[in-house]
Amino acid sequence: MQTLCCKGSFEVVVQKQIRLFVFKPGFFLSVFRRNQSLHGPSPVTTFGPKACMLQNPHAVMHIQDPASQKLTWNKPPKSVLVIKKIRDASLLQPFKELCIFLTEVKNMIVYVEKKVLDDPAISGDENFGAIAKKFCTFREDFDDLSNRVDFIICLGGDGTLLYASSLFQESVPPVMAFHLGSLGFLTPFKFDTYQSQVTQIIEGNAAIVLRSRLKVQVLKENWEKKDTMDEKSIILTNGDAESSRKVMQYQVLNEVVVDRGPSSYLSNVDLYLDGHLITTVQGDGEYTGVIVSTPTGSTAYAVAAGASMIHPNVPAIMITPICPHSLSFRPIVVPAGVELKIKLSREARNTAWVSFDGRKRQEICHGDSITITTSCFPVPSICFRDPVNDWFESLAQCLHWNVRKKQNYLISEDEEF
Amino acid sequence: MQTLCCKGSFEVVVQKQIRLFVFKPGFFLSVFRRNQSLHGPSPVTTFGPKACMLQNPHAVMHIQDPASQKLTWNKPPKSVLVIKKIRDASLLQPFKELCIFLTEVKNMIVYVEKKVLDDPAISGDENFGAIAKKFCTFREDFDDLSNRVDFIICLGGDGTLLYASSLFQESVPPVMAFHLGSLGFLTPFKFDTYQSQVTQIIEGNAAIVLRSRLKVQVLKENWEKKDTMDEKSIILTNGDAESSRKVMQYQVLNEVVVDRGPSSYLSNVDLYLDGHLITTVQGDGEYTGVIVSTPTGSTAYAVAAGASMIHPNVPAIMITPICPHSLSFRPIVVPAGVELKIKLSREARNTAWVSFDGRKRQEICHGDSITITTSCFPVPSICFRDPVNDWFESLAQCLHWNVRKKQNYLISEDEEF
Amino acid sequence: MQTLCCKGSFEVVVQKQIRLFVFKPGFFLSVFRRNQSLHGPSPVTTFGPKACMLQNPHAVMHIQDPASQKLTWNKPPKSVLVIKKIRDASLLQPFKELCIFLTEVKNMIVYVEKKVLDDPAISGDENFGAIAKKFCTFREDFDDLSNRVDFIICLGGDGTLLYASSLFQESVPPVMAFHLGSLGFLTPFKFDTYQSQVTQIIEGNAAIVLRSRLKVQVLKENWEKKDTMDEKSIILTNGDAESSRKVMQYQVLNEVVVDRGPSSYLSNVDLYLDGHLITTVQGDGEYTGVIVSTPTGSTAYAVAAGASMIHPNVPAIMITPICPHSLSFRPIVVPAGVELKIKLSREARNTAWVSFDGRKRQEICHGDSITITTSCFPVPSICFRDPVNDWFESLAQCLHWNVRKKQNYLISEDEEF
Amino acid sequence: MQTLCCKGSFEVVVQKQIRLFVFKPGFFLSVFRRNQSLHGPSPVTTFGPKACMLQNPHAVMHIQDPASQKLTWNKPPKSVLVIKKIRDASLLQPFKELCIFLTEVKNMIVYVEKKVLDDPAISGDENFGAIAKKFCTFREDFDDLSNRVDFIICLGGDGTLLYASSLFQESVPPVMAFHLGSLGFLTPFKFDTYQSQVTQIIEGNAAIVLRSRLKVQVLKENWEKKDTMDEKSIILTNGDAESSRKVMQYQVLNEVVVDRGPSSYLSNVDLYLDGHLITTVQGDGEYTGVIVSTPTGSTAYAVAAGASMIHPNVPAIMITPICPHSLSFRPIVVPAGVELKIKLSREARNTAWVSFDGRKRQEICHGDSITITTSCFPVPSICFRDPVNDWFESLAQCLHWNVRKKQNYLISEDEEF
Repeated sequence: MQTLCCKGSFEVVVQKQIRLFVFKPGFFLSVFRRNQSLHGPSPVTTFGPKACMLQNPHAVMHIQDPASQKLTWNKPPKSVLVIKKIRDASLLQPFKELCIFLTEVKNMIVYVEKKVLDDPAISGDENFGAIAKKFCTFREDFDDLSNRVDFIICLGGDGTLLYASSLFQESVPPVMAFHLGSLGFLTPFKFDTYQSQVTQIIEGNAAIVLRSRLKVQVLKENWEKKDTMDEKSIILTNGDAESSRKVMQYQVLNEVVVDRGPSSYLSNVDLYLDGHLITTVQGDGEYTGVIVSTPTGSTAYAVAAGASMIHPNVPAIMITPICPHSLSFRPIVVPAGVELKIKLSREARNTAWVSFDGRKRQEICHGDSITITTSCFPVPSICFRDPVNDWFESLAQCLHWNVRKKQNYLISEDEEF
Repeated sequence: MQTLCCKGSFEVVVQKQIRLFVFKPGFFLSVFRRNQSLHGPSPVTTFGPKACMLQNPHAVMHIQDPASQKLTWNKPPKSVLVIKKIRDASLLQPFKELCIFLTEVKNMIVYVEKKVLDDPAISGDENFGAIAKKFCTFREDFDDLSNRVDFIICLGGDGTLLYASSLFQESVPPVMAFHLGSLGFLTPFKFDTYQSQVTQIIEGNAAIVLRSRLKVQVLKENWEKKDTMDEKSIILTNGDAESSRKVMQYQVLNEVVVDRGPSSYLSNVDLYLDGHLITTVQGDGEYTGVIVSTPTGSTAYAVAAGASMIHPNVPAIMITPICPHSLSFRPIVVPAGVELKIKLSREARNTAWVSFDGRKRQEICHGDSITITTSCFPVPSICFRDPVNDWFESLAQCLHWNVRKKQNYLISEDEEF
Repeated sequence: MQTLCCKGSFEVVVQKQIRLFVFKPGFFLSVFRRNQSLHGPSPVTTFGPKACMLQNPHAVMHIQDPASQKLTWNKPPKSVLVIKKIRDASLLQPFKELCIFLTEVKNMIVYVEKKVLDDPAISGDENFGAIAKKFCTFREDFDDLSNRVDFIICLGGDGTLLYASSLFQESVPPVMAFHLGSLGFLTPFKFDTYQSQVTQIIEGNAAIVLRSRLKVQVLKENWEKKDTMDEKSIILTNGDAESSRKVMQYQVLNEVVVDRGPSSYLSNVDLYLDGHLITTVQGDGEYTGVIVSTPTGSTAYAVAAGASMIHPNVPAIMITPICPHSLSFRPIVVPAGVELKIKLSREARNTAWVSFDGRKRQEICHGDSITITTSCFPVPSICFRDPVNDWFESLAQCLHWNVRKKQNYLISEDEEF
Repeated sequence: MQTLCCKGSFEVVVQKQIRLFVFKPGFFLSVFRRNQSLHGPSPVTTFGPKACMLQNPHAVMHIQDPASQKLTWNKPPKSVLVIKKIRDASLLQPFKELCIFLTEVKNMIVYVEKKVLDDPAISGDENFGAIAKKFCTFREDFDDLSNRVDFIICLGGDGTLLYASSLFQESVPPVMAFHLGSLGFLTPFKFDTYQSQVTQIIEGNAAIVLRSRLKVQVLKENWEKKDTMDEKSIILTNGDAESSRKVMQYQVLNEVVVDRGPSSYLSNVDLYLDGHLITTVQGDGEYTGVIVSTPTGSTAYAVAAGASMIHPNVPAIMITPICPHSLSFRPIVVPAGVELKIKLSREARNTAWVSFDGRKRQEICHGDSITITTSCFPVPSICFRDPVNDWFESLAQCLHWNVRKKQNYLISEDEEF
């Protein structure tokens, strides 16, 4: 039996790498400063004079320090998907500008959703029409974009990134997200200098944060054709095509929400972790439910429901109750590698409802189950500065995190007031 | 430039390992069930057809799946440190029983703190006296236990584990913690069957959870000899022995707390993360302050201050304000690898105070700084069942997590009431 | 101009009253102990040597100390409404027993909702049938119970009291509520000794707590006959019977909830207090909304959404956001006498939904408004002991308020651990 | 036995008053709009056809509608106490200006604390010296200001009002509070137009909010002369002057805080309400304790500890735990008229500490008790606009209450994103 007794070896090698990359000034600046991984140091695995950790080489993971995760290109990117928030007139001009720049200056093939081009404000613009003819268009839930898009640019709010995520159920191309008005949690880039910034990314100079997603499988016991479900998410059906057992799969960037739905009957759900029942979420209130979120999702619904905010580089899953009647039902943070399962409780007199990043809402009946694990297909989100600075900037901008007026209203014992 | 394009390779190899360990039935039971690490799956590092992550072999960590972390012994353990909560009469009999068992049955050398034996209820027991003569004794802050103790047994509350942690500033021997009354967060074992359970651990059958600690360095700019500081924590002093610059170091299992102390003047502190000022904690309230905690500490002070609970296998550091006047100052969870630094703000008119796991409380003046990183010396805490089950059991027992009376007081639109 | 300069006169007169009531031993026991109203002492209205409060005799209220509110009968009660939670088999036997007792022993006329008697478990019981024939039955939303019922007895959960409240849009008869299983917030009586307890109430020995209700008026601008609204709540319509302006009115015991409904579009609502816009509730999340509750309702949905608990004798209205994205949007408590108004914001792209004690859910469109004031028709809820003790008992039983396992895991500087 | 059956009579009479005051335009503007008291309508006290409330004329309070509380003067005010935050250079010039205006223009006698004038920046100003000679000075804890001051003006933060409150243990003169920088909860006036505003108040045009205070009596069982306690707060001592039983009394505007103090031993305290033990506050954490606050104090420490905000016109007392380990220990709001008592628990191994508005911190030992009731001496705080508007303004300014950036990051099922 072997023992694993490496002590801080990681810290040493990082020092060496500095030489390797000094020719790229500015790029590895952060590497110069830090001598440990964002994941924390490797723990010493000898415990006192005689104990150590049983070595299990087959259970060892090899993780690259999240702080050093950089984007590179095997070949120059040629196709770019541009996602625009619809119904927002202020985005029209930037959208056109960007598309012209990508097509004419960068010679890239632009993919745009068909309904974006169908907007009269775009289809009616004759000048833009000539360019738009060169675009590739697609329809959501009909056309498959896998392996056709090298790069994604989002224009609008955080919703554009959620939408981009939903288009790619497996590997996701790198995403660069611009906010037009105010900073979002997921949209770090300002549009002002988009030309130089897009150019820089295409040339391969970019820090990325791998935003973990949740792989959610919904097993429907008594599914019927008429149920509104998109075909693409169905990954497994019974031989009998007419009805019964089906498994749908979703990739979720923010959160899975399970709630009582419009019913007013009791609809408790049981929550299992690695096969053990850990709690029952009582669905006796109109707003009761549970949120299973990624660290990225911790700043979306979960924070509104009282959760702490988790940096996207923490490998974790957050479980947050919505308006629980039990005052002790605090949010919890569990390791990213657990398997969660949600089912209706036996005593539930009604169904529950589930949605994925606010979409694909559907009913969960007795016998159905929702299985949630961390996906191996993250969203590679391009950073404006770096994962840490971008995150604190978004906390301050979006949540006013500890932004306060200075005040000092307390008086001291003797004379201070 | 190389690219790293492994896809889910980890999941495959875990399947293989099952063969290797089947001869130890029950021991790797959890391995059979799960096919992924508690850390989550290795993310696929190709992003669409052309992008991938820039490989940086020097920044790769090798982490063993926390779910498979088991204790083993290079040689049979001979010396055992027994820690007993003092001033608790109910612990006297179990303590004596345990010590006799370890000495007479297991032939181990028992280490006990001197003041425990000085308790009249022990020193006055003549029957026990003969055994107690064989014990090795030590005095806190005087005697060094490093490399002398193979194994630690705690009797009492969570405080015994904090105390054990404080005795070992570097590698910590495996710790087995018994609660005598009600379950603690850190004391999973019941004393009833201590003989068989201790025997099993000594024979090497034990799951462990590596509880990360924080390495805290306190730099004192104008330190004077008269200041009450224990010598052992001083790791660096100036040549000039009389005064000035000193660095103390502490290993913290639960949390570092910085507060205003007894003063009633303003004592703001600045909080830096990887060199960037992320926020200022305003010390204008009697109870204002900030808690920097490990996941283990998330269920101690941090949860009382409103934090979410974090499983100890999540590599993270939690930052929780104490009674902040800014309503938006929510707790945050950052990656384990960041470096935090806390200093008095320039405008602070007073000092702040810091304590480590509730001990070694000291003043922080202008110019001083507190640097906090995740330590590479965790506390290897022996599990009663496994890291996941033990944790949920402690949440239910210690925090009544979502333990509620069933009630259904809501009425429906039509008839349910 | 007169000045009002009474100083503590109230405290004096209370002392006198003791003599008046001593013939009723035990009944005014609490009066002996306390020398001030639950409302607090009358404030002294002279401020220093020369200032005082401008007397405004027309704006003076005369409030009886809530702690001395007792029930009395002008004439002996003859008719009693029995409300039973339906679909709960465990209530059948108590219900029958109680009805027989009231009819045969107390010679009262029992009112029961028709559908309760239609339950096969009751209609099929021949023995009970003879008694049941004597009952008066009514149908909700069809028959008017005003001025026909002297006394109400509820069997079941808190929902039975909400239901009783909904049946009486003006004066509510005294309500005695039994819990059969576990204590509810609104159901303080145990059924075991129901005979003696009912007898005592009928004889006039009862402390009551006046649970304030909210009077809610919903103004619908473009209402059409086909909209599902019960006729009884319509208090005002236009001359033109076909369509347009209608005002509905509801009496609410727990809370009014306004939320986004099933839509996924933005539906912000504006909240006005006494005519001033105080805040906008952003409806951008699935669960976002606002709860306007009575103190009684503070322990229902509001507490699940994070509110503090308010004793029912505090004259106040609570405003609690549901899962707000703004972290600073804490619940607030305003005086009972304010007028709140809720309307869709001008920029809302969708409607909102409102419900009243979880019932009568309906849509709110542009132009509609919801006006909320404290009603002058409270629910006189009979106390088991007294308003204060009953409340703390329900907090402990229903919310486990500060019920905790004793633990002491903290260690001291020197030796305590 | 009489019965009290008034129905909404209050609402009628308010309508009449409008005529009485129309000669004062603008002054009673709010009266025109509202037809009910801030206290809420008088509840109808008949319950169904036969029940009503037992009339108890001796337990009736006569409360003037808080919304109509206006200041008036029996005689023109002659003496004015000016309170200035010390150590704040930015206040020097406004302070001098104000004092000159009051002395020279308004011919008032200015009272100033001696140490304010001792500040070199004031004593060294020869121009101001001539004016300052006319001031009356006093020393805190030495000189009694009761009945000598007609009017108070505060310059600085909320602390100045707390300090003003502490100077008047009985009737408090009207207080006008200016903030110089940013708005405080208690300092609604801007200094810019101080001349016209002060003039208007002196002429008697002012809405006031009566901020309730807590009357706190501390009974010390074994008090000794050497204990540091100011003589003025001692209201009762034993005949034996040397030692033993003493009662101190304090008037508190914000809160009473009881905590564990510097000790690290267990110091549980029991909390009694009207003689009943309602809960035990476990003092096992460094920051554990309990806050008993007025509505005014709900926005000070209590809100930082998680409480809801209560408008100062709600007659209530708030009980808020500080960092409780029991997750269900939520803040509660009880009627203003209850009597709270706090004592060390029998099993406490140590003392507790208490402070009053952050001052007069002292130890509480076994046998001592703290009795808290609502005082009949409120602080008449002059409104800038009116009690409701001023409060919401301070919530927005001081707590950023629901001030948020508009964002819409959620996507809809079909196309909205």
